[in-house]
Parts: sequence; C-alpha cells; structure tokens
Amino acid sequence: MADTIFPPPSPDKAVLEEGAVFSPRFDSSGLITAVVTDAGDGMLLMVAYMNAEALALTLRTGIAHYWSRSRNSLWKKGETSGNFQHVVDLRTDCDQDAVWLSVNVEGDQATCHTGRRSCFYRKVVEDDGVARLENDGSEPVFDPATVYGKLK
Amino acid sequence: MADTIFPPPSPDKAVLEEGAVFSPRFDSSGLITAVVTDAGDGMLLMVAYMNAEALALTLRTGIAHYWSRSRNSLWKKGETSGNFQHVVDLRTDCDQDAVWLSVNVEGDQATCHTGRRSCFYRKVVEDDGVARLENDGSEPVFDPATVYGKLK
Repeated sequence: MADTIFPPPSPDKAVLEEGAVFSPRFDSSGLITAVVTDAGDGMLLMVAYMNAEALALTLRTGIAHYWSRSRNSLWKKGETSGNFQHVVDLRTDCDQDAVWLSVNVEGDQATCHTGRRSCFYRKVVEDDGVARLENDGSEPVFDPATVYGKLK
Repeated sequence: MADTIFPPPSPDKAVLEEGAVFSPRFDSSGLITAVVTDAGDGMLLMVAYMNAEALALTLRTGIAHYWSRSRNSLWKKGETSGNFQHVVDLRTDCDQDAVWLSVNVEGDQATCHTGRRSCFYRKVVEDDGVARLENDGSEPVFDPATVYGKLK
C-alpha cells in the first residue's frame, strides 16, 4: 500500500474549491471518477474509477492504477496488454469528486479492451425518438482474444 | 418528459459492446457519468451526471441537460449563467456506462461555477508522499457572485 494519505474533504466550500489541499471526495463505494485523455492529441481514451490505494499508487509511481468494479480488484492498467499509461498530468475538478489523467500510452496504443485506441468508438444518434449507436469505424489495433485470452 | 425510452442493457457482452442498440447503464442511483469537452479545441470542461430524463432531453434538444446531485434536480446547464452547451457529438463507451459530449459553449465560455472555462484548474502534485494542489493560473471569466448571486 502506498503511503499517501488523503485528508477528509473540508466542509468549507472555498477551501475545497480554491485551496491547495488535495482531499478527493470518494463516493459511498470509496471510488472517484477518473477521465483519461492522451497527452499527445488530447483524445478521450476512457473513463474509469479509482479507490484511495489506486490513486496513491498512481501518484507514487506515475503509472495509472484503477479499481476494477467488474473484477472487484486493484487494476494496474496494461498489466496484461502491455499498454501501461504514463501519467503526464493529473488534475482534480472544482469540488474534487473527479480526476483527470493526461497520459502517454505504452505499446500498441490501444486503451480499450476491445482492442481500439479509445473506448468511445460509438456515436449516439436519434431518429424520431429512437436512440441508436453508430460505430465510428475505428478498428481494433490488437486482437483481444490473443491479448487477453481466457481472461477476457 | 422527453419521449425517448432506453431499453435495458443486453446481458450479451457482444451486443453491449459492438451493437447498435443504445442501452445506457445507469448506476444504482439512476445516473450515468458524462464527460464534457469543447468541440473547438477538445479541452476537458467538466464531469457531470445524467439521469434518463436528462439524457433524453439532451438528445431531443441538442442542449446539454444533467442531473444535479447537490440540488437533486434536473439541470439545464446555462439556465442561470447563459452558458448553454450545444451538443456537437454524443458518444458512449464500450460497456455503455459513460457518455461523452463534445459541445460548443454559448456566452462567455465559462463552464465552471467558479467562473473558469474548465472545472479542472488544479494540478495534483506529490512531494514526499504529500499530495497537494497547484492552481494552473486560469482566471475566472465571470464573477460567480454577480452571475449566481444567492443561488451560489
């Protein structure tokens, strides 16, 4: 466990919004939302969640760690695929209930487990009150079956 | 209430991840995470939450609507400040538990209630196991006290 301890959020809104104390506001499940963009071109790559340990490890090592809600475990992104995320910039928002990571992706540049560069490959369109998805045509840069095998 | 109805998520992972059916996975509070970037330069502006009604209204009107967790009410962003968000592109991610809005901001271009363009104006830095925040120097483009008055 990394040593960084996060103090509890200040009840003073001005301190929370303008102060220099980092007191991430984890939700009732102990998680905070993390938005991840590419440090090169700014592309939105993924949205994930961190618990305090994942956030502390990310700050300590400079490599992005998350909490996997599906596996219920700490998740060092890239451990299986090799696509580690090197954190160039980490920010929080006004009320400190989200973080933003700007990263350089190692390896074949795929962030999504489907093999694509970004998880956001489908556009939502609406026709006459029916919403549907349109794939933007982005192709997998790796074969998930090969990379993840039975882990998938 | 907008008419768009979202079907329940498919239990079939392939349908959820590769299909054309938009079935947003709202959490146990009925909310989905929304990441908002500027359609012009891609800047990350804010992270917010939508319930089904807010999402349907956003699709219907092309103007971003959210659910305010602090006020516990539907929130048409810009209603007070005039900084409405015109949606240029709306996407969802692989497992459909987040949406991404690319928007043009009306008015004075401030998205954050502190008067700044983005909510992410503070960088997290760590020295010897102590994490602290550094303001990136971005200045408010409006005075929150004037714009929001007692609403703040």
